[in-house]
Amino acid sequence: METVFEIKPIGIIRTPYVSSAPYQPVENANEGDFYLVVNPEYANGLYKLESFKYIYVIYFLNRIDREPSMIVSPPWSNGKRVGLFASRSPLRPNPIGISVVELKGINDNIVYISSLDAFDKTPLIDIKPYIKDLDTKEDANHGWVDDLEDKEHLILHIKGIPHDY
Amino acid sequence: METVFEIKPIGIIRTPYVSSAPYQPVENANEGDFYLVVNPEYANGLYKLESFKYIYVIYFLNRIDREPSMIVSPPWSNGKRVGLFASRSPLRPNPIGISVVELKGINDNIVYISSLDAFDKTPLIDIKPYIKDLDTKEDANHGWVDDLEDKEHLILHIKGIPHDY
Repeated sequence: METVFEIKPIGIIRTPYVSSAPYQPVENANEGDFYLVVNPEYANGLYKLESFKYIYVIYFLNRIDREPSMIVSPPWSNGKRVGLFASRSPLRPNPIGISVVELKGINDNIVYISSLDAFDKTPLIDIKPYIKDLDTKEDANHGWVDDLEDKEHLILHIKGIPHDY
Repeated sequence: METVFEIKPIGIIRTPYVSSAPYQPVENANEGDFYLVVNPEYANGLYKLESFKYIYVIYFLNRIDREPSMIVSPPWSNGKRVGLFASRSPLRPNPIGISVVELKGINDNIVYISSLDAFDKTPLIDIKPYIKDLDTKEDANHGWVDDLEDKEHLILHIKGIPHDY
């Protein structure tokens, strides 16, 4: 029998994306449009979280209902084919999403955050502090995106910055 | 009935930590001691991953068998009490671990990485590229650790740098 592990929601993510979500966070979304509603039994676990500028939001992409392909062609990559694990595609063997977001404030069990690319009511499964010395890699790269001709344009998409071309 | 989601291993993590793991990665572990063994059916998903300097390794902390407390006192924090979600404690409602590691090389279904703090044979559940513009936050902080008197010392622990005091 195949080993499986169970995970459970610890809350939900509220976003303006009811029927469609951008592939990556949009920078011009309204403040206050994005927040986490943590189940009351976990609210005490948020103590001191507010001391962090950034947090990891970890969620379960529960709208995914297809088997993943091992080779994918990410949006706006102009047909470039890469391995699934070299992409941030939501269609993965374990559809777990991870976003680094700015922490805007906490009120009881509500955590206000900067935008992220998840549908409204996506199940929240964990929150972790983003800790500068562990998680900030200043010499990181953009991998295969760095090799593409229109890299600068693609990076606008990756960062979710609106643009006209 | 409570909602639960199922996740499944996509491979295992090999590390030198058979019976005890450091709280955070140690910098002086041997090259080649840390690698991911991806199940053969997912090996094609690694195509082009090697173009990234850093990757996220996502794993299931399957040795955890206790209910988490919502208030924790992280190791070497001198008794500081913080919320579970303001810590990287492995004892969480969903025991999912996330580490940013350096990608050293890939050989078929084996991914060589820099050190991380997981026990040998920890189930691997996902690999994602760490993409500079999405994941590197140069203005990130250390949250509540920044307020402690011996912050510099604690950061050595967080970074897993061996030291004598």
